[in-house]
Amino acid sequence: MDYNVFAKACPSRPTLEHITGRWGSLTLTALADGQLRFNELRRRVDGVSEKMLSQTLQALERDGLVLREAQNTNPPRVDYSLTPLGRETAERLLALIHLLEGRMPEVLEAQRLYDARA
Amino acid sequence: MDYNVFAKACPSRPTLEHITGRWGSLTLTALADGQLRFNELRRRVDGVSEKMLSQTLQALERDGLVLREAQNTNPPRVDYSLTPLGRETAERLLALIHLLEGRMPEVLEAQRLYDARA
Repeated sequence: MDYNVFAKACPSRPTLEHITGRWGSLTLTALADGQLRFNELRRRVDGVSEKMLSQTLQALERDGLVLREAQNTNPPRVDYSLTPLGRETAERLLALIHLLEGRMPEVLEAQRLYDARA
Repeated sequence: MDYNVFAKACPSRPTLEHITGRWGSLTLTALADGQLRFNELRRRVDGVSEKMLSQTLQALERDGLVLREAQNTNPPRVDYSLTPLGRETAERLLALIHLLEGRMPEVLEAQRLYDARA
């Protein structure tokens, strides 16, 4: 079977949305530097709520992109890291994010011109 | 100034969301093969409503990623294409999408194992 994100019913589409969604892309790329605990991740992904980060991690874990490891400590500790596929995905997301961050002056100038025309 | 998508207030974050959002990524990559009219684009991005596609295109045009050209014909015709920055963005999105489409068997197997544990 060939998978195609352009087809509405293709199972690749929900996974694309988990990867690229509002919090999915930041969560995956935050983990690119190594494993993090939930609260570390929450600080890194500035602005995410506890609930949204939980949901995001759960979807990424189910897709096989994030590994969740509960440590048998007291208090219990949960570490999150990338699977090999999660790492490859994060690398491609970082290429996109670095392009965007580097070209923001161009984006802001386009926005200024657009708004001046409106 | 350095731009950083991890900072809640950075202007790069809304642009990242336009690029990676539910319809933004599909719209940009649909245009990677060349210019399309609104209805052609709507057919290609299976499942998008007219309203959502309009909003998506408007945000991408304002960010300087998509070029909108109204032709002076009767009936009037509007063509959409990528700017040079839009093209570079679409290339990085395609690298992500092709990775995902190629690895869907692995994703589906992870989902099956996750659901069996639940």
